[in-house]
Amino acid sequence: MYTLKDILYAKSIAVVGASNNPDKMGYTLLKNIADGGFEGPIYPVNLKEDNILGIKCYPDILSIPENIDLVVISVPAVIVKDIIKQAGEKGAKGAIIISGGFKEIGNYDLEMEVLETAKEFGMRIIGPNCQGVNYTANKMCATWPLVKTQGSIGIVSQSGTIGATIELWAEKEEMGVSCFASLGNKSDISETDFIEFFAEDPNTKVVALNIEGIQEGEVFIDTIARTSQKKPIVVLKPGRTEKGIKAVASHTKSIAGNDKIFTAFCKKHGVIRANDITELYDFCKITAMSKKLKDNKMLIMTSSGGAGIIATDTAEEIGIEIAPINDKLKKTLEDILPDQCVLSNPLDLTGDATAERYEKALKAVIDDGSFDFILTIFGDPIPGAFEVINKVKSESDVQIIVSYLGGGDVEEQEVKLMNKNSIPAFPTPERAVKAAKALLQLKI
Amino acid sequence: MYTLKDILYAKSIAVVGASNNPDKMGYTLLKNIADGGFEGPIYPVNLKEDNILGIKCYPDILSIPENIDLVVISVPAVIVKDIIKQAGEKGAKGAIIISGGFKEIGNYDLEMEVLETAKEFGMRIIGPNCQGVNYTANKMCATWPLVKTQGSIGIVSQSGTIGATIELWAEKEEMGVSCFASLGNKSDISETDFIEFFAEDPNTKVVALNIEGIQEGEVFIDTIARTSQKKPIVVLKPGRTEKGIKAVASHTKSIAGNDKIFTAFCKKHGVIRANDITELYDFCKITAMSKKLKDNKMLIMTSSGGAGIIATDTAEEIGIEIAPINDKLKKTLEDILPDQCVLSNPLDLTGDATAERYEKALKAVIDDGSFDFILTIFGDPIPGAFEVINKVKSESDVQIIVSYLGGGDVEEQEVKLMNKNSIPAFPTPERAVKAAKALLQLKI
Repeated sequence: MYTLKDILYAKSIAVVGASNNPDKMGYTLLKNIADGGFEGPIYPVNLKEDNILGIKCYPDILSIPENIDLVVISVPAVIVKDIIKQAGEKGAKGAIIISGGFKEIGNYDLEMEVLETAKEFGMRIIGPNCQGVNYTANKMCATWPLVKTQGSIGIVSQSGTIGATIELWAEKEEMGVSCFASLGNKSDISETDFIEFFAEDPNTKVVALNIEGIQEGEVFIDTIARTSQKKPIVVLKPGRTEKGIKAVASHTKSIAGNDKIFTAFCKKHGVIRANDITELYDFCKITAMSKKLKDNKMLIMTSSGGAGIIATDTAEEIGIEIAPINDKLKKTLEDILPDQCVLSNPLDLTGDATAERYEKALKAVIDDGSFDFILTIFGDPIPGAFEVINKVKSESDVQIIVSYLGGGDVEEQEVKLMNKNSIPAFPTPERAVKAAKALLQLKI
Repeated sequence: MYTLKDILYAKSIAVVGASNNPDKMGYTLLKNIADGGFEGPIYPVNLKEDNILGIKCYPDILSIPENIDLVVISVPAVIVKDIIKQAGEKGAKGAIIISGGFKEIGNYDLEMEVLETAKEFGMRIIGPNCQGVNYTANKMCATWPLVKTQGSIGIVSQSGTIGATIELWAEKEEMGVSCFASLGNKSDISETDFIEFFAEDPNTKVVALNIEGIQEGEVFIDTIARTSQKKPIVVLKPGRTEKGIKAVASHTKSIAGNDKIFTAFCKKHGVIRANDITELYDFCKITAMSKKLKDNKMLIMTSSGGAGIIATDTAEEIGIEIAPINDKLKKTLEDILPDQCVLSNPLDLTGDATAERYEKALKAVIDDGSFDFILTIFGDPIPGAFEVINKVKSESDVQIIVSYLGGGDVEEQEVKLMNKNSIPAFPTPERAVKAAKALLQLKI
């Protein structure tokens, strides 16, 4: 039997159902694989075309002159089984079946036949009825949207849309992902296979998981328990409410299960639970960039008093301690900061704060050693913000989390720079504080 | 005595402390007033310059050949009083004092003297120690950042940063604002004056309020009570926790007050309470575009099953009812939708849903009449999404709220189009549902 790794590291791809019509999925898939920079040969398969997007096209898989590693399929459900058979004969190790029309509309037998055919050749299946897979280290974007930036978040998502949303946000902030995989009907490869892969994958630092129901519960639980010892896992599992459970059942015919048990399981293993899409993204971002925090005492340093208060309220509400600063630190800050600064926690550097003032204050707080992490809020476009944080970070062990707001284009550029350099930066203080809380839940 | 309106509709502006040095506030202020397209004369005042940004410069206010309506001041605190006196002699109706160095660092007397001087001439003061004011209908951006898009949110904010963040987000989504005002020390003009102004302002549809403490509590409460009968008010008032209250006291020397009493007051008058910056923005956006909802039954229509479930969980958790669809509607939908669609609430149009499929389904739900509002989720870049929603909206009374996600550039363009056409569109289902809840709290 081949493995998921054989699919993700495919050296050649056939796209069956490739099309010259931009409205067709087969066009988008071929285009994204090509534009994503896939380095091996790409073989469009379409009976009626000579070439698509300038790439020579074949009438069927068997006409392809070389063996193929992977076949991406977007054709009607009824002919998928034959395609799999041909692919198997060409030595394919796996198939990504985008096509719908299987279990999700009651066609259980058809899905089973496809799976049995694949098994004869040792082939592995992702899907059917899925949005495909992007593995950036292999420049293999066999899905949509086209995302090329290599990052360290490995996404495996029941919902194509939710996974793609995370991936697009990561791309926009120039942080990227290692992988985006959408599971569809999970006839063969499931979230468990991906989690196992991510656990050993050098390109993945954090596992982002969106699941609805769980198949093979014991294997899943065992895999999560083992992987959470190695890498942070963030999970978005909707179906927390009665109506939500019903919606899960309608969507993937799966059982959401008892939410309280799942919550307890997550807590036990340091799995971080996200309640919505924004949290899934924020928690992945911060765990990809930061280490576990030792205690829950946070110092807030800000140029915006108002933003500092919002951070304080949020922290108090979710159990992060805004501990007072001690007299010695206060004395030091008094000596180095201008009179208008408010020397407490939040430490308000006031509206005219420069990068230099932040640097002085950060160094004083770090030297003092009372705080394990610092939320640094920039409430205006402050030139040199990134440089200061990057310098201070490289010289100390203290975790710095950034909230940059009110900064327009400067903010956007600085946030990208920070994210690229493993400084987690958030658009609002409340999101930064909630993300810090996620770090506190890690066991590793 | 002049009024706030005289300041916001100023016909000429002197910028005292204008500078040729881009690092100075006086440069930014002059540049934003000029680049914002202010149509009256602008007079930079600086002893040492002949012209700034190509505009003739004057050594002092008294040398300006014409009378002036408004003076924007960014000079050291000690000379502000003299500037006010000269401005008064030139007929100025008001001053925006950006300069700090007054009450906030203990200089109460200096602040009082400035105020007394202004009073002699009937002049009104915004600030000192504030981030200025942008009134887009008069193209008067006497603040930063530069934001020109005219919209219908009137922001009055204790915190310059929080107000500016809302304003920047509104600009980015091409929705704009009517006003952004930062209050600073509130020596004269307070949030109450702005709320009174917004209540009658034809350019403002919703009042966005960020306050910490309240001065003149009775007048404030009376003003809010009256204004909330005319226009939606959304308020972000931090200081909900013990540490938050302390932070408020350090920041603006004001008293946050008893949060429970404030919450009860908001509830009584249909004032919408936002807990953070994102909510302040989302709640303003939806109330600027939508009417009060009659009941809390929501239909979720989606192309992404996963996003539909997240919307369902969120709705259940905050008390919005995801009511089942009746048999008659189900029968209708069965006739017009393909087999793979899931005919319940959420109504899952599935991943290959086209704009046409949305249109058919929306019309059927509207004709049925069981739902007062519909959350429409687009889980992929769907060409024509905006056109369909705009058409359906123009033909019916049902409130449509949109969540568009996973759509990259297409999503960004479509969301802008929707917002411009008063269709509230949000980047995640959870934000859309929480915003819908805000609509339910309105009394008007």
